[in-house]
This record gives sequence, C-alpha cells and structure tokens, in this order.
Amino acid sequence: MARLIALDWGTTALRAWLLGDNGRVLDARAHDGGLLSVTAGTPTDIRADTRADDYEKVFAAVCGDWLGAQPGLPAIACGMVGSAQGWQEAGYVTVPADLRFDAATLTRVPHKDGVLHLVPGLRVAPTGQRTGDVMRGEETQLVGVLDLLDESGDLLVVLPGTHTKWVRIAAGQVESFTTAMTGELYGLLMEHGILARTAHAPVRDDAAFTRGLDADISRGISTALFGARALVLDGALEPSALPDYVSGLLIADEIRHLLPADRKRIVLCGKPDLCRRYAAALERHDAHPAATLTEEAAARGLWHIAVTSGLVTGDDAARHRIEEVS
Amino acid sequence: MARLIALDWGTTALRAWLLGDNGRVLDARAHDGGLLSVTAGTPTDIRADTRADDYEKVFAAVCGDWLGAQPGLPAIACGMVGSAQGWQEAGYVTVPADLRFDAATLTRVPHKDGVLHLVPGLRVAPTGQRTGDVMRGEETQLVGVLDLLDESGDLLVVLPGTHTKWVRIAAGQVESFTTAMTGELYGLLMEHGILARTAHAPVRDDAAFTRGLDADISRGISTALFGARALVLDGALEPSALPDYVSGLLIADEIRHLLPADRKRIVLCGKPDLCRRYAAALERHDAHPAATLTEEAAARGLWHIAVTSGLVTGDDAARHRIEEVS
Repeated sequence: MARLIALDWGTTALRAWLLGDNGRVLDARAHDGGLLSVTAGTPTDIRADTRADDYEKVFAAVCGDWLGAQPGLPAIACGMVGSAQGWQEAGYVTVPADLRFDAATLTRVPHKDGVLHLVPGLRVAPTGQRTGDVMRGEETQLVGVLDLLDESGDLLVVLPGTHTKWVRIAAGQVESFTTAMTGELYGLLMEHGILARTAHAPVRDDAAFTRGLDADISRGISTALFGARALVLDGALEPSALPDYVSGLLIADEIRHLLPADRKRIVLCGKPDLCRRYAAALERHDAHPAATLTEEAAARGLWHIAVTSGLVTGDDAARHRIEEVS
Repeated sequence: MARLIALDWGTTALRAWLLGDNGRVLDARAHDGGLLSVTAGTPTDIRADTRADDYEKVFAAVCGDWLGAQPGLPAIACGMVGSAQGWQEAGYVTVPADLRFDAATLTRVPHKDGVLHLVPGLRVAPTGQRTGDVMRGEETQLVGVLDLLDESGDLLVVLPGTHTKWVRIAAGQVESFTTAMTGELYGLLMEHGILARTAHAPVRDDAAFTRGLDADISRGISTALFGARALVLDGALEPSALPDYVSGLLIADEIRHLLPADRKRIVLCGKPDLCRRYAAALERHDAHPAATLTEEAAARGLWHIAVTSGLVTGDDAARHRIEEVS
C-alpha cells in the first residue's frame, strides 16, 4: 500500500515517487515541469496570481492518478517549488542547523485534492565581506545521505549539479555550505553564445574531459573558456569534444577554489556521470570520495522527513537502510 | 566625395561608415545583422551554401545606397564576417606581428556590386600547456589606436567587450594577447538562468558595480556569482542592482588574473561605459590608463588599412590624426 507521495521539484525538472512501507519506492516519475518552465515567458510579478494554479496543474498531471487511487495520501516536496518563485515560499533554516524537520518547519499548501507539504531550504547568513548562501532541495538529499550512510561523523558532502553544493557536516549538523554555479555556467555556455557555435555534434569524450581537468587555468576561467575555442580553431580539439573539455575546465576551477585544506571524509551525491567527473577531478588533489550516492537520496530524505514530522506514522525511517551505497 | 565604405562586422552587430578624404566620417550606420543573427536558427553546416547570400543581403541593406550613389566605391570589413562562419574565411596572421596589412593579406569577396575586402584576424599559437588565442576585428581597432595615438612605445591595450582582449604591443608589434570572455559570461548570466530571474527592473547602479569590484572572489567566480543571488535573497542587494554588481564581480576577476606584473602604459579602447568600468577596476591595482579611445578606432583602422593596402590612394593616413583621444 502506498504511504507517501514524495517530490523533488527543482529548477528544471520534477521527480516524483510513490513510496510504500519503510519508504520503499513503488513507482517513480520524471517531468520537465520545473520552476523555469512553470514560470516561463512572462515576468514573475505579472504571473504571481496565476502561478499557484500553474503549479497545481503540473502537480495534478504528475500525481493525480496516485491521489485518485488513494485519496488523502500525504504528499511532501522539496526544492525550488518552495522558493519565492515557487508554488509557495517555504522559508529557510539558518545554519548551523541539524537536519531534523518537524511538522512546524513544513509549509502547508492546500490544493483541491489535499495538502502538499514543503520542506524549507537552508541558508548561510552573510558574515563580513562574505556573502551568504542558500540551498533548496539539497537539504533533503543531505537527510537522505545521512540516513543511507548511518553516518554521524564529520563529512564533506559534495552535491554536483546546476548549483553544486559543498556542505560541511559535523556531528550530524550542517555547519556551513558553499555554492558554485558551475553546472549553470556549463549549460549557458553550451546552449548559447560562441562555444555553442564552436561545438559540433557533441559526443562523450573522456579524454577531452581529462584534458580540460589538467588544462592551465592560471589566467582565470574566463580566459581558459575562450582558450577552448582557440583549440578548436587550431585543429587541436575536435568540435565534438568541446563540451567535455569545457566540463573539465569548469569542474577543475571549482575544485581548486572550494576543496578545503582540512580534509574530511568526502561523500558525493548526484547524477552518476557528474559524480564520476567530480571524483576524477578530486583525485587530482589526492581526495578520494568515501561514498557516492545517487540523487535518489532525495526520495530517502523525503521519507525520513515525512516520518520525523509525523506525516507518516508507525515506521522509523532510521531503522531501515536501503542498499544504495556504492 | 566618399572614398571608402568601412565595416566593423562583428558577432552581434555591424557598424558601417562612409569615409571621405583623410578618412573623415561622412555617414555612419549601425545594424544588428551580426554573425549570430545571420547564421541564426539552423546548424552552420546546413546553411553553408546559403550563408554567402545571407551576408550579401545584409551588406546590400546597409550599404546599397552608398554603392548606388557612387558605383565602384572600395569596401573593406573587419570582424567575424571573416571567420569560418562568416561571409568568407579571411585567415589569421600569427603574432608576434606588425600591424601593416598590405593587399596580399586581404581576402577579396566578390559580390554583385563589387568586391568587399576582408581584414585577417590575429592568432597566438599554442605553446606547451597554454592554449592559443584569436581575435577578429580588434586587430583593426589596434591599427586605429596606434594611428590615433601616434604611439611607438610599449603599450598594453585593453579592448573591453564580449571577448575582452589584453594586447601587449612593443615597438609597434603585437607581441601577444589574451582573451577573457567576461562580456559573454555577463550576457549569458543576465539573459538566461537564475540570475536573470533574480534581477528585476535593472537600473544603472554605480555603487553596486563598485561593491562587485570589491567583493570577496577568493572562492572563485562561480561561487561569487551565486553569492549575488544570496545577497538579493538576504535583502542586502536590490534586484535592480544585481546586473551592475555582477558586472563588477566579473571585471574584477578578469583583472585579477590578467593585469601583468610588469606594467606598461595602458590604453583602453571600447564602449565608453565599459571603459569607465575597467578604469575603475584597474585603479584598484594602481593601474591608471594613459588614454581611453572609443570603438570608433575601428573606422580609423579600416581607413589606415585601406591606405596601406592600396585600396584608396593619394593619402597617407599616418599624416592625419583625428582628435578623438580623451
């Protein structure tokens, strides 16, 4: 029997799981109705009044049959759906913070078939010259990561993605985190602009990625990126290999800036291909991830939060581990 | 009487001048038919056969009446119109190189009303771990800069733009140059993606620009950029001021990487607002531009090249300076 509808509703996509006892995945779906597509086309302020309707339509399209088959099924979501441009603003918890989300921390969004519960994001307050930081969705992946690893020690969790997060965890608490918008820069460069024109019939090319990792980035990433174009014009790089070369440049630059000097155990959590790239880049700094988890950690985290917040009962998520650690 | 049609035909736009005796500007036009718009929409290889027609149409639309009034008027163009995706590939001269372009260096593009002459670009050959570099159009601005300044000493010419060039000139020769795609990154970030969503009703905000210049970028530009979003979410930066803040971040990062330790006389050449920004950023490193020229240096450069290559005769460009130095 289904116990929970769980959604990781991000900037570009929505993933939905129907979870049964102990958070077992009964069904899973992906949909491209992320924040950018729901709010696309018109200025945010103009759309504010109809935005909730737009989000509800996507929710009904993805989960309507689940709710139809089992009315009253609890539903929980994390991610940009809880941002200022989301369905409803779900607030932030300021770090340092533990990752126990009780009922009071969830934002209730009533809709015609029930209530969707939104998980808050996490924020780092600004200090002195340093800007603050924010995450939405990754806090739930972190809950899943800690649950899956049954880990209470110090960790550096790296969550590669559009906005890669570097999260310092000590004694189960999130101490702090830093975002690099590496994935977004990659997407912008490869979809628009001059490098998108330079690339041609892109293919996966691990050698080009490695070459990007090992390239000279001492003149700054902006120069190194233009250098990719020069390599193609010089016939020294295949146009088809340009995307993977650029991926290597960007990831190497990120790691050079963000890998801390005081090494903790590193855990990677994200898309397998991206984690593999980060692992290769980290190895160049003698940093070897202790574990790599997939983004499915979000489903585990949503289940865990649903239990700790009382959305689902009679089950202690912490007692059940799924065998997902690679 | 008109002597020359001169075009600076770049990635996003085309500027055309009708030049009279001594390169005096008789008429000037701007058109948005740059390389990206001419080749827009379909893969380059499919369009290769019709591309020349498309360029010719834009050329006729912009300069047709000038040629109609004075058939046989010589025409010369610099910029991306001479790239592999341009009207015709105009090649590159490898640096170190002087900036004397004779007739043999120009590529002749016949069209129904005459011949358009294309100025070659410049390239830096790759060495060891360092990638090469390329420019198209800026070589002509450099010719104009040197002509306008009547300068034969050592110079660092910085040409801010979509792809900012840092050019080392010694004894009238281009020794080497480096490109940072700072302007392109700014455009991509501000037109697409999450910062475009965060910004709102952008206004010019010099204080925000200065704040970006002075921000902590020690964690890398990718993190600093995401920090701009955090500032807005924290209410510490107006959404309308975000573009200028990001402009400050990107220019500061570029200068930190590319300003050489061995200081030469610095000359800025580009759009006045952009030059003003670079000057402010350079001042933070105690570097003070000796002169600032506008992009109209391209018209001067095209005239100079037309004279040295014999396209126009009976005039020595080097004898005539226009009073454009600020």
